[in-house]
Amino acid sequence: MTKIIINSDRLLEDLHSLRSFGCSGTGVIRPAFSAADISARHWLIKRIKAAGLTAKVDPAGNVFGLPPSSEKALLLGSHSDSQPQGGWLDGAYGVITALEIARASLECGGPPIAMVSFQDEEGRFSTLTGSKLFSGALTLSDADKLTDITGTSFSQARLSMADICQSEFIDPKLFSGFIEAHIEQGIVLDQANQDIGVVDSIVGINNEKFSFFGQQNHAGTTPMQLRRDAFQGLVRFTTELNLALADIVIDSTVWTIGHVQLHPNAASIIPGRVDFNLQWRDASDKRLTAMRKVIHNCATRISTELELGLEHHSFSSVPATVIDPQLMDQISSATAQLATDRWRHMPSGALHDASNLSSVMPVAMLFIPSIDGISHDFAEDTAIRHLILGAQVLAASVSR
Amino acid sequence: MTKIIINSDRLLEDLHSLRSFGCSGTGVIRPAFSAADISARHWLIKRIKAAGLTAKVDPAGNVFGLPPSSEKALLLGSHSDSQPQGGWLDGAYGVITALEIARASLECGGPPIAMVSFQDEEGRFSTLTGSKLFSGALTLSDADKLTDITGTSFSQARLSMADICQSEFIDPKLFSGFIEAHIEQGIVLDQANQDIGVVDSIVGINNEKFSFFGQQNHAGTTPMQLRRDAFQGLVRFTTELNLALADIVIDSTVWTIGHVQLHPNAASIIPGRVDFNLQWRDASDKRLTAMRKVIHNCATRISTELELGLEHHSFSSVPATVIDPQLMDQISSATAQLATDRWRHMPSGALHDASNLSSVMPVAMLFIPSIDGISHDFAEDTAIRHLILGAQVLAASVSR
Repeated sequence: MTKIIINSDRLLEDLHSLRSFGCSGTGVIRPAFSAADISARHWLIKRIKAAGLTAKVDPAGNVFGLPPSSEKALLLGSHSDSQPQGGWLDGAYGVITALEIARASLECGGPPIAMVSFQDEEGRFSTLTGSKLFSGALTLSDADKLTDITGTSFSQARLSMADICQSEFIDPKLFSGFIEAHIEQGIVLDQANQDIGVVDSIVGINNEKFSFFGQQNHAGTTPMQLRRDAFQGLVRFTTELNLALADIVIDSTVWTIGHVQLHPNAASIIPGRVDFNLQWRDASDKRLTAMRKVIHNCATRISTELELGLEHHSFSSVPATVIDPQLMDQISSATAQLATDRWRHMPSGALHDASNLSSVMPVAMLFIPSIDGISHDFAEDTAIRHLILGAQVLAASVSR
Repeated sequence: MTKIIINSDRLLEDLHSLRSFGCSGTGVIRPAFSAADISARHWLIKRIKAAGLTAKVDPAGNVFGLPPSSEKALLLGSHSDSQPQGGWLDGAYGVITALEIARASLECGGPPIAMVSFQDEEGRFSTLTGSKLFSGALTLSDADKLTDITGTSFSQARLSMADICQSEFIDPKLFSGFIEAHIEQGIVLDQANQDIGVVDSIVGINNEKFSFFGQQNHAGTTPMQLRRDAFQGLVRFTTELNLALADIVIDSTVWTIGHVQLHPNAASIIPGRVDFNLQWRDASDKRLTAMRKVIHNCATRISTELELGLEHHSFSSVPATVIDPQLMDQISSATAQLATDRWRHMPSGALHDASNLSSVMPVAMLFIPSIDGISHDFAEDTAIRHLILGAQVLAASVSR
């Protein structure tokens, strides 16, 4: 077995170089196809070439570093675009870790390791746009019609990188599998004082919008017993749903009412309508479906009991991702050696590019801790020793 | 006793004439000091003069019709301004009823009856602005600083009526009492199939804004047991408050959460903050205060149990209005004769000009039904027989 030894100084130096593109204070402003994002991708291509890898950019702006080998390579990576106002590690950590390991493996005659930085993971046009295109979940002609909030289309945006993009996508069959290293973006590892999370599943997400309709009325002249108050309907629904779901969920299941809009939303008027969004996530698609049934039953029961109208709008569903057991075992073994007992298996509550790639190759993921669980925020950070340990674990996982 | 006999054809004709100012379909658009409102007041002055009454307009634009008598007169009336898009009877009914009864009493040699149309009851500048000024609850120099939502000041607005306004307010001591006839603006009479409501109290209103503060976080990566979700706090608070208030309220007490704002109000983010408005109304100031204590205790308990921050903002309070027992008895007797058993005593859940006048003279009110309880809407309406019956009851109440 050739053991891949990473150069942690070089890793940290490259991480800080990538951070400088779009840097604002401690965070970054580097949305997909922004000037900062394109400059960062140009810099990345230089680093790929300097490492002795072949740089290729597909029509979506996904940047690959391919090893000089006829064998199938293991692909590592993540994304280098950021939230409109994001942290410096979300995506960037997985990209630079991949670069360092591909480079180190080439230097020491290790196995063929390729790296990638996907484009528009953070959803300027659509979530995980670059990996959707690479994996075939989205066609380029459909992607080209997508627009950002200012009305700029994906086809217009990618023109700004056209000079370095080739006309064809990279064939996923070139790769034996994909491993993504990422910050946790949650508080579980930090709070448990653990160093590494080996991802055993990426949750599926169901999202559904509902409205309860009551009778808008004067808040002074309408007795309580004659009211049909849409907000009170939402309160009853939320309370009873929490109880009903408790019977069928596991510890890692989550559900959230994050958006609520009352109509007309005035102090002296009984709400005649409330729109709200319910989102639920779980690693089992079967459980997601069972939850949906409980949610619908509960909403229907409340609407009947309180004489409220009920409408469902725009259900959307992203299925749970199956993690490849063999890749996960390789990561678990390496983690057990390097992090002794300070690690855990855990689900990923957030979507990642690995979700899309699971349809075309085996995938796995590992997490390093986020300090205080903060992400999508300038304050996002991770201890230096965890930045290095994550790369060491991943390097050990892919050595063979 | 001189019995005042109203002319119901003339009553309905005047009601329809007033409706024509700012008429839009079946409703009216006649906010205070709008061109339609000023035209309506000019028309009203002509009708007052034609009735043999003396027309006087005070600096606030309140229009009075005074009888030729040295005795104290009983004042009847309401307001002729409307909501920005209002119904045709809200206020107008009480004004035209007062005009008809003052006119009819003069014709038959009855007691001295004065009438009034107050200005800006509907709150372009401040709720019940005209009657606040008449009763001394607001000074003209303070009123002049009030502005509407476009930034126009009360002092600017009243310039448009300056040619017909006298420089002094009318002395409330000229009047022995005030009775306001009004549509119910609620569904109680209509649903009970009753013809008249004799108001036994006008509720006091307490209004308070609160915020719960939790921890804004990712809806996928934050386990349920580590969440501090501000919206879930509001749900718990609302549920427990409903139970706690049930122990200390009476049938006519009402409380409403009509305004809710989540932050950041996004599907995938756990709400870090929720602002909401709680309003409660009751005819007893003592009960209003007791309710406030229950509300505060409940909010504090929830904030402690769920580890949420709690802030109270901008409490406001309008005290309950005491109805004069003698005036109420006169109305009750007249009602019992004309509406047999199809009437009730009831509180007014809405504020009215009578609330302000109660500080300077005895006041009373009577309600006629609103079809389906609809008000502040073009669809506001009342059966013709109720329009006539209300005026007959009021005329009989003030005959002596």
